[in-house]
Amino acid sequence: MKVPLLAALAAVLPCALAVWPIPQTLQEGSANTLVNLVHISTQGDVSPVVKSAINRYREIINRECFLAPVDYRRGVLPTGGTFGGLVVSVASTSEALGLSTDESYTLDVPVNGSATLHAKTPYGVVRGLETFSQLVTANGPAKAIANTPIHIADAPAFAHRGLLFDTARNFYSLGAIFRTLDAMSYNKMNVFHWHIVDSQSWPVESATFPELHRKGAYGPQMAYSRADVQRVIRYAGDRGIRVVPEFDVPGHTYAVGLSHPELMSCMNKQPNWDAYAAEPPSGQLNIALPESVDFVNKLIDEYAALFTDEAFHIGGDEVNLKCWTDDPVVQNVTAATGMDVATQLLRWYSQVHDHLDATGKTPYTWEETVFDAHYVPSFKTILQAWKGHASVVNAVGKGYRVVASTYDSYYLDCGHGAWLSNFDGNSWCDPFKTWMHIYNYDVLANITDPEQRKRVVGAEVAAWSEQTDETVIDPRLWPRAAAMAETAWSGKTDAAGHVRTTAEVASRLHEQRFRMVGRGINAEPMQPLWCARNPGACNLP
Amino acid sequence: MKVPLLAALAAVLPCALAVWPIPQTLQEGSANTLVNLVHISTQGDVSPVVKSAINRYREIINRECFLAPVDYRRGVLPTGGTFGGLVVSVASTSEALGLSTDESYTLDVPVNGSATLHAKTPYGVVRGLETFSQLVTANGPAKAIANTPIHIADAPAFAHRGLLFDTARNFYSLGAIFRTLDAMSYNKMNVFHWHIVDSQSWPVESATFPELHRKGAYGPQMAYSRADVQRVIRYAGDRGIRVVPEFDVPGHTYAVGLSHPELMSCMNKQPNWDAYAAEPPSGQLNIALPESVDFVNKLIDEYAALFTDEAFHIGGDEVNLKCWTDDPVVQNVTAATGMDVATQLLRWYSQVHDHLDATGKTPYTWEETVFDAHYVPSFKTILQAWKGHASVVNAVGKGYRVVASTYDSYYLDCGHGAWLSNFDGNSWCDPFKTWMHIYNYDVLANITDPEQRKRVVGAEVAAWSEQTDETVIDPRLWPRAAAMAETAWSGKTDAAGHVRTTAEVASRLHEQRFRMVGRGINAEPMQPLWCARNPGACNLP
Repeated sequence: MKVPLLAALAAVLPCALAVWPIPQTLQEGSANTLVNLVHISTQGDVSPVVKSAINRYREIINRECFLAPVDYRRGVLPTGGTFGGLVVSVASTSEALGLSTDESYTLDVPVNGSATLHAKTPYGVVRGLETFSQLVTANGPAKAIANTPIHIADAPAFAHRGLLFDTARNFYSLGAIFRTLDAMSYNKMNVFHWHIVDSQSWPVESATFPELHRKGAYGPQMAYSRADVQRVIRYAGDRGIRVVPEFDVPGHTYAVGLSHPELMSCMNKQPNWDAYAAEPPSGQLNIALPESVDFVNKLIDEYAALFTDEAFHIGGDEVNLKCWTDDPVVQNVTAATGMDVATQLLRWYSQVHDHLDATGKTPYTWEETVFDAHYVPSFKTILQAWKGHASVVNAVGKGYRVVASTYDSYYLDCGHGAWLSNFDGNSWCDPFKTWMHIYNYDVLANITDPEQRKRVVGAEVAAWSEQTDETVIDPRLWPRAAAMAETAWSGKTDAAGHVRTTAEVASRLHEQRFRMVGRGINAEPMQPLWCARNPGACNLP
Repeated sequence: MKVPLLAALAAVLPCALAVWPIPQTLQEGSANTLVNLVHISTQGDVSPVVKSAINRYREIINRECFLAPVDYRRGVLPTGGTFGGLVVSVASTSEALGLSTDESYTLDVPVNGSATLHAKTPYGVVRGLETFSQLVTANGPAKAIANTPIHIADAPAFAHRGLLFDTARNFYSLGAIFRTLDAMSYNKMNVFHWHIVDSQSWPVESATFPELHRKGAYGPQMAYSRADVQRVIRYAGDRGIRVVPEFDVPGHTYAVGLSHPELMSCMNKQPNWDAYAAEPPSGQLNIALPESVDFVNKLIDEYAALFTDEAFHIGGDEVNLKCWTDDPVVQNVTAATGMDVATQLLRWYSQVHDHLDATGKTPYTWEETVFDAHYVPSFKTILQAWKGHASVVNAVGKGYRVVASTYDSYYLDCGHGAWLSNFDGNSWCDPFKTWMHIYNYDVLANITDPEQRKRVVGAEVAAWSEQTDETVIDPRLWPRAAAMAETAWSGKTDAAGHVRTTAEVASRLHEQRFRMVGRGINAEPMQPLWCARNPGACNLP
């Protein structure tokens, strides 16, 4: 009784190769190519990133024996040719990685003989190798590439395809970070937004202020050394992933106060912390003190050098004015200068942002800096919008570039209820964001002007860690972050302008989810396996 | 600035031992006892379950070096005596395990010398050993038991403290089941409700109908052999956990139809499955056919013997009448006998329930059997209520014993949004049930009659698996199931009748969560570590 349905579905389902995210153009044939051990060679000069990627994917591909859930009863594919290895060539050996890096590639797999992968930069090779790895499928005792010959020409729709990773509310080992970077690379994501410190802890070594991590980390084993940071940057760079650090000031800084109480206002107000902060513990840098500017600028000097990316995120979210208006030190300055707290904040921002600008970094800041504090940073600043899509629209309207991290689509931690010990209720950002909800969000919605659309540099999901740590990070992130990754790489529409629907892509995302599980990422299941095997049978009528 | 708060909290926080679930009575002293290698010996005859538990806990205790998060800055406790081993005695060597099993125990730990654990049954020993294991804390280079001398007299408030585990929507390896049973034992839970089969798959061997698992399992590696089942029963029994199997009939049986289409109605109706079933694929046993009674009764015969527990769950939930009224075979019977579908269902239930009664088993059935189908099973039947607390009240009012599995408190899978591929919305049972919400539920609410209160035999959380499999089962279950476990073991109130609040118990649950993580269970974090270390500082004012 199931067979007629499956037959009917097979008739309507395109026999497309199930690459995730889907390439911009993909032409496929109707033959199948036998794959034995995969050799990958290079033509011309290649950089270390390329060599490292080739070694990595050679291992992944030769170890992997992947069969998509939908293919569970597929017989052995008859093959019409034999794969003769992959030849990689790349126009540049420059390993510069940033917002303007070219990640495009072309990949050709003939029915018989050698396949070719060509890219302009090492990072295009990284993307192309991931695509190639997804073409190889188990086939009886051997492997195969189906639907050859294949021609793929691919490039990302958006330059910033990020994940915010919060190591301050709860700590993560380097292993968890490396695994997350692996998973990001499987989905062609390219920005690891390292929300490294926050009020709850300061888990990163500072050479300038070593007391920060000594007193602010959860413990000596729960802090990243400067060498650890360099390892993360290198590991990420090998995968074409930028590491954009965030040092969130002047709010969210209680942990600074553990070693520098003299710089702080409203440290750990209790029990009415909610008058002073979005969550406990309260504590903000005292913006009336020149010492707090000096402190932040020295931090910028150190970390702008340690974190080699072109960008540096300076935070600026959820600032609480009452924290300062209640502070006697701030009150004295207000009385002496006649400058109210809002004005003091503007002055503070200008001193810190000017210093950051002078480092040559591209500053990132949360939307509140502009929309709430009404500070006007330089136009090279990129705003990160989280309060709703209107903020994305607003940012590009003001002339800023923006990364869309809209909480009601992209906050992966939401939907887990409240976490305050004595409150039996929902959280502010419930409900849970399903992969369908994430996939359906269009970061360009309601932006029509072509110049403004260009200012949307990308999208970023966020995994705030109040209720997350290493025990649950994989299923909290995956496969939902992959849903964002496809819309950010492939865009919302196909070449014909058709907006892809979740019903259409579900089967491909199932495949990607199972592939990730096979590669050691505990991505959670989207549905019963029965649904993964029977595309279309688990739709709402 | 943090210190005054902590000092204030320390003054009000009871210096209680942090056992989870909290014992019925616990008297503690003010000394500390040094613990070196822990020896556990027995006095008198003990059964294999006791020997196995002693071996298990000897290993756990001696391997464990646990320090509660709240103690992170605690110095080395000065010790006033040395632990001289634990002596276990037990009144009975009977390994009978069921609803009436006595799980009580007494535990005495002096400041110096031997501790004693006494119980009436082997399962009381199992519970007492878990309690004892939680008393031992890391103490500098050694270990200690704080607050000696200690006297604990403990017994459960409810006889059924269960977890529903669904192996049909997605499959779980034996390893995941064993790990779950371990975690249950750490929380003194005692019923593994094995929702072993459902519409999506039939992952258990049948000797009577081997075609069931051959065609109905997701695959040969995704089915439990009869020997596997016996291993699970033995593993659970060693931990004082009953294995209550559920063979859900007549609904939720599409997987049966893969090998027995002749027994079925409304197999996999598409795309309008929602007219025939709560979720795809639709399919119910054809209740108009005597063959379907015969089939189920033979299944009962086989599985009532394989699953040795005194209880057997026969399902009965979410039956869809349209599935049958649309069925030509059913229509013929209706026409020939004048018996409508509702009456046919009653007749079918009586034949199946009579057969189950005759096996001597205690039948469990979902509430719909009584409340929707209006079948009147024997009063030895236990209803499982899930549609809301009113069903619990209703069940005991009708004279039935009941297990409370109220979806809006106890369904651990809820709050994860919808899972149908084309639907960007919430699920019927959103929002997420936080541990606070679970802890606050009182299964005895609105039941005042003492006889009726006795009929509430217990509580059971459910982990339906549409969006869960082995990748995420640990954090989906824990620590939330532990919140239920304490209310079911300890009851809602302390000896003085005070209803325990989540603010009061949060610190102890944090400790239990971290203990579980140390024991290899990926229980998710409740809060930032900062909150776990600073009790009371993460409350809503």
